[in-house]
Amino acid sequence: VHNYYALSVNKIPVAVLGGTGYAGATLCELIDRHPAFELAFATARTAGELRGGDAQRIPVMPVEDAPLDSAQVVFSALPHGVSAQWVARARTAGARVVDLSADLRPGSGAVGIPYGLTELARDEVRGADVVANPGCYPTAVLLALAPLLRRGLIAPGATIAATAASGVTGAGASPKKELMFAEVADNYRAYGVGNAHRHVAELQAMVARHGTDADLVFTPHLLPVARGILATTVVPVAEPIRDPVALWREDYAGEPFIEVANEPPALRDVVGRNVARVFVTVAANAKRPALIVISAIDNLLKGAGGQAIQNANLMLGLDECAGLPR
Amino acid sequence: VHNYYALSVNKIPVAVLGGTGYAGATLCELIDRHPAFELAFATARTAGELRGGDAQRIPVMPVEDAPLDSAQVVFSALPHGVSAQWVARARTAGARVVDLSADLRPGSGAVGIPYGLTELARDEVRGADVVANPGCYPTAVLLALAPLLRRGLIAPGATIAATAASGVTGAGASPKKELMFAEVADNYRAYGVGNAHRHVAELQAMVARHGTDADLVFTPHLLPVARGILATTVVPVAEPIRDPVALWREDYAGEPFIEVANEPPALRDVVGRNVARVFVTVAANAKRPALIVISAIDNLLKGAGGQAIQNANLMLGLDECAGLPR
Amino acid sequence: VHNYYALSVNKIPVAVLGGTGYAGATLCELIDRHPAFELAFATARTAGELRGGDAQRIPVMPVEDAPLDSAQVVFSALPHGVSAQWVARARTAGARVVDLSADLRPGSGAVGIPYGLTELARDEVRGADVVANPGCYPTAVLLALAPLLRRGLIAPGATIAATAASGVTGAGASPKKELMFAEVADNYRAYGVGNAHRHVAELQAMVARHGTDADLVFTPHLLPVARGILATTVVPVAEPIRDPVALWREDYAGEPFIEVANEPPALRDVVGRNVARVFVTVAANAKRPALIVISAIDNLLKGAGGQAIQNANLMLGLDECAGLPR
Amino acid sequence: VHNYYALSVNKIPVAVLGGTGYAGATLCELIDRHPAFELAFATARTAGELRGGDAQRIPVMPVEDAPLDSAQVVFSALPHGVSAQWVARARTAGARVVDLSADLRPGSGAVGIPYGLTELARDEVRGADVVANPGCYPTAVLLALAPLLRRGLIAPGATIAATAASGVTGAGASPKKELMFAEVADNYRAYGVGNAHRHVAELQAMVARHGTDADLVFTPHLLPVARGILATTVVPVAEPIRDPVALWREDYAGEPFIEVANEPPALRDVVGRNVARVFVTVAANAKRPALIVISAIDNLLKGAGGQAIQNANLMLGLDECAGLPR
Repeated sequence: VHNYYALSVNKIPVAVLGGTGYAGATLCELIDRHPAFELAFATARTAGELRGGDAQRIPVMPVEDAPLDSAQVVFSALPHGVSAQWVARARTAGARVVDLSADLRPGSGAVGIPYGLTELARDEVRGADVVANPGCYPTAVLLALAPLLRRGLIAPGATIAATAASGVTGAGASPKKELMFAEVADNYRAYGVGNAHRHVAELQAMVARHGTDADLVFTPHLLPVARGILATTVVPVAEPIRDPVALWREDYAGEPFIEVANEPPALRDVVGRNVARVFVTVAANAKRPALIVISAIDNLLKGAGGQAIQNANLMLGLDECAGLPR
Repeated sequence: VHNYYALSVNKIPVAVLGGTGYAGATLCELIDRHPAFELAFATARTAGELRGGDAQRIPVMPVEDAPLDSAQVVFSALPHGVSAQWVARARTAGARVVDLSADLRPGSGAVGIPYGLTELARDEVRGADVVANPGCYPTAVLLALAPLLRRGLIAPGATIAATAASGVTGAGASPKKELMFAEVADNYRAYGVGNAHRHVAELQAMVARHGTDADLVFTPHLLPVARGILATTVVPVAEPIRDPVALWREDYAGEPFIEVANEPPALRDVVGRNVARVFVTVAANAKRPALIVISAIDNLLKGAGGQAIQNANLMLGLDECAGLPR
Repeated sequence: VHNYYALSVNKIPVAVLGGTGYAGATLCELIDRHPAFELAFATARTAGELRGGDAQRIPVMPVEDAPLDSAQVVFSALPHGVSAQWVARARTAGARVVDLSADLRPGSGAVGIPYGLTELARDEVRGADVVANPGCYPTAVLLALAPLLRRGLIAPGATIAATAASGVTGAGASPKKELMFAEVADNYRAYGVGNAHRHVAELQAMVARHGTDADLVFTPHLLPVARGILATTVVPVAEPIRDPVALWREDYAGEPFIEVANEPPALRDVVGRNVARVFVTVAANAKRPALIVISAIDNLLKGAGGQAIQNANLMLGLDECAGLPR
Repeated sequence: VHNYYALSVNKIPVAVLGGTGYAGATLCELIDRHPAFELAFATARTAGELRGGDAQRIPVMPVEDAPLDSAQVVFSALPHGVSAQWVARARTAGARVVDLSADLRPGSGAVGIPYGLTELARDEVRGADVVANPGCYPTAVLLALAPLLRRGLIAPGATIAATAASGVTGAGASPKKELMFAEVADNYRAYGVGNAHRHVAELQAMVARHGTDADLVFTPHLLPVARGILATTVVPVAEPIRDPVALWREDYAGEPFIEVANEPPALRDVVGRNVARVFVTVAANAKRPALIVISAIDNLLKGAGGQAIQNANLMLGLDECAGLPR
């Protein structure tokens, strides 16, 4: 009775909880073009809320009425605080789950859930039943820092300054005064200043896992663009590193979705693509060695829905790149 | 013979060398509205190059033909490397000079020239014959840092991360591919990464004057907006500072052009105004104390032409605020 | 008891009903800088809703609690359908009124109310007790057409095509999905197509008053800019007009707020100024004569609050230009 | 000797003359993803000028050195006035040619060359050796008007007002002052006013071919967006048309690249897609019948490179939709 419309014989039915936000809409679009997935349903308070052309073709219902057992993979793009309970219900119904909320991420108190920053946790994600999909900002910052964190190269007692800027789709699709065109255009501002952003816990938990005592100060900003995140991270390092880019090239060799660049990336290089582009250089004119790492992603793709698909591909043993724009 | 058109009896004749760029054009506009100044002439390769409505009314000639002795104050908005020689010629001709280029700023090798970050050098500027007007980025960053620098509160061995973003008028008025609408819109990128920007020398020289051994890493970015600079500076401090904003309020009490804010400033708060708005807060969730200071200016006003007028007002003993939008 | 704060002895107390929208906020700002006016109060559901810096300084109350008798001039920026009753109450309380809603404009059914397109109705406005302030689009289109309408030069049976584009502040300050940055940026669309816009009645009524039988088709569009309206009006004319600009120059000679231009105006030429800039030329390569008239205004100034002040100045016998940016 | 790199056995070698502009770059990208085409070479003054990732992989040379005989189809995106001679040389070398310049279009004086507004000239294009690819504006306006032109429904003696707006990529990729971000952002202006735009000849020639005596007044505008054209065309018609959309639906039934819409299209609906979306409605409150037709295209796809590929597909007997985004 759940199958309001005929699903293909050979495709894997998947579902999106919370299909009306930008992340949920991106998931619906990616699933629509995915060679192996088929959207069984998406939830929304009303069908009219669903963004994109799928609204006419797929079953839409409030999450309370969702036929969770009709999907092999459930993507939850529900709000933080609300999502965890639906992850549990979807698990009970037998589905694998990629949770895009913060509810199960490092720093949330949840334990034992793989953190799906895919390139850093491929083995944990492969075959997992539940994956906590990273936040958009942590994806950008942690992919920038990983080669240093893994090698213990950050200076003891250092303060890492991660300063990032995001397009407005990162702030959600609900109409708010501060997101109106007349407020955002010709403007730029910081928010969550003083380590007050929700993503700080996740970022700091991941940094701490590597045993460094460095502090991380994260400051996000709102850009007058629709999509994209660019993070500029200044990292004092313990010893001079002559050729830092070699470390990133080594760690990310063969990665289909990471581009180690010779020039600082621009948002335009990554928008519309499920990639992270990373650039690193040495701070000149400094008494103590420090690196500057610039990383850019599309906040809705590698920073949300794209990475969620990437994780789901791995969880199901599919080609990790299936259905993802590069 | 220099006076191509009749100057007022009671106004002070001033001149702009390099009237075709954005800084020069801003100067021409400010002078036009100034209660005590009158534009004697502006230089440009052709009169048609002069921006703004003054083009029809004031004498325009190549700098080589400029009647330097007809102005009591000469503002040089000529390119770096070219400006210094014209500053010298204007001095020889008897004019006082505000030089908006980097030629005479700290870090340039020039000595004995007051650095016109007005609020930090009011006594030196007052009565000076030549003032080196600060760069736009240094204005934003140094006004943010001054209360800490003066008090020696920056942690020994710290790396200060000053990450800033500017509108495109900061990159000049000459047509370049990377400044075209189709390249800048929907985009955001860093440039001069690794302490490679021209303003680094000026910034570091000013930091070093205060006796700290801290390093400064400066990373500028290009915003898809026309005007405005916002700098986000992360500063490790030696000891916890319970109420940091009190320091900024103390130092900037009564300053007509500095606003110490309770909320992080946005570009919109300062564009069109000759002010710097500064916000400071403590980094939460950190093992070692650090502050985040956010400062915003209009790059063409407090960051260039406005501060130049502010300095000229002081040099001539006028009201420091004369002719400046707040 | 109404005077929550001390008003100046020599200034004229005025009030703004509906101070929270963009037009109301513009009025508050203009009054704040007006040499002869003083803001007695502004209405809003909550004081926090009032935009701009005056929120702290002036009395704000719901319109039901407004001390209408404390103002000599009341500007109503209340919504269409709501405004008329408050205009009547303000009149009863003894105030003169400028109504920025459509309630009393031509085509509304109201009679005997001067239509405050100032340059076309100066004598009626001067000394009036109530003035219906024109809509933003009609201001742009009617100032473009007036020289032809007055002279009866429009071709009999013609269809006038007035195609206009407006910045988003024309659509109001209430948060709506279609006005969010992510919807408006990189986009452009028509609305109210087929003579369905609220301003059509006003436009057509004014055209009809001049005795022409021409039809007017008005099509507004939404631009990805904050402010400004540009209207492109194609008008078949009865006979070839060799030098059309001469007519506009004749009609608008000496007008302080109308600029007849030699080049097509851009939004940038008029934003921030209470002016209309108009350009006219002949359609080449046409078998029958037609003119194209381009007109540009700032929708919040000459298209709303600025023209309202201009009308109030006239009504009180003040300098028509007082307090208005040019 | 021409084959600098190995071409596939089963793909058709094609070439792009003038690969450095936006149209040329779009062609290179489309060819790169085309299932049957392979880019044999592109011309540019220097290889570095070639936009996009193909620069490294394909042969680039000045047009004078182009191995014209190595391509089965040559796309010329050379400038107007320059293109025709290279079309002739490519024909001599045995290639079929799609010319994106105005040199061979209606109104140019050239005769016997099919005008590749594909949906209106499919039979002529199929099998042609040379096709004149339409201008971006004419594509939008003529697809809007065709159902009326074909049926002779336009009112005798009418003036058609076609008012259109384009993103800046329509103005080319060469750095010019008027195309810089600081000039285009927050701005909007008409250009080529008075039937002075290069596309007027092409538009009027196509209208005249249908035997109507109507005049066409075309007014283009520059939008602060990168891509997209939206045309608003007001057409007096001879008789009232009760259900105009039925005509468009009839004419464009089954067309893969034309969408007849129930709502006015927005740029966003078509950018990134090789489609034209058209909406038509009746002018209400008019004494004489008139229609308003709104049409939107991506100026670089359906307005240039996309339509060129569509034509080439037809010329070679391929699936018309091959390699084109919908």
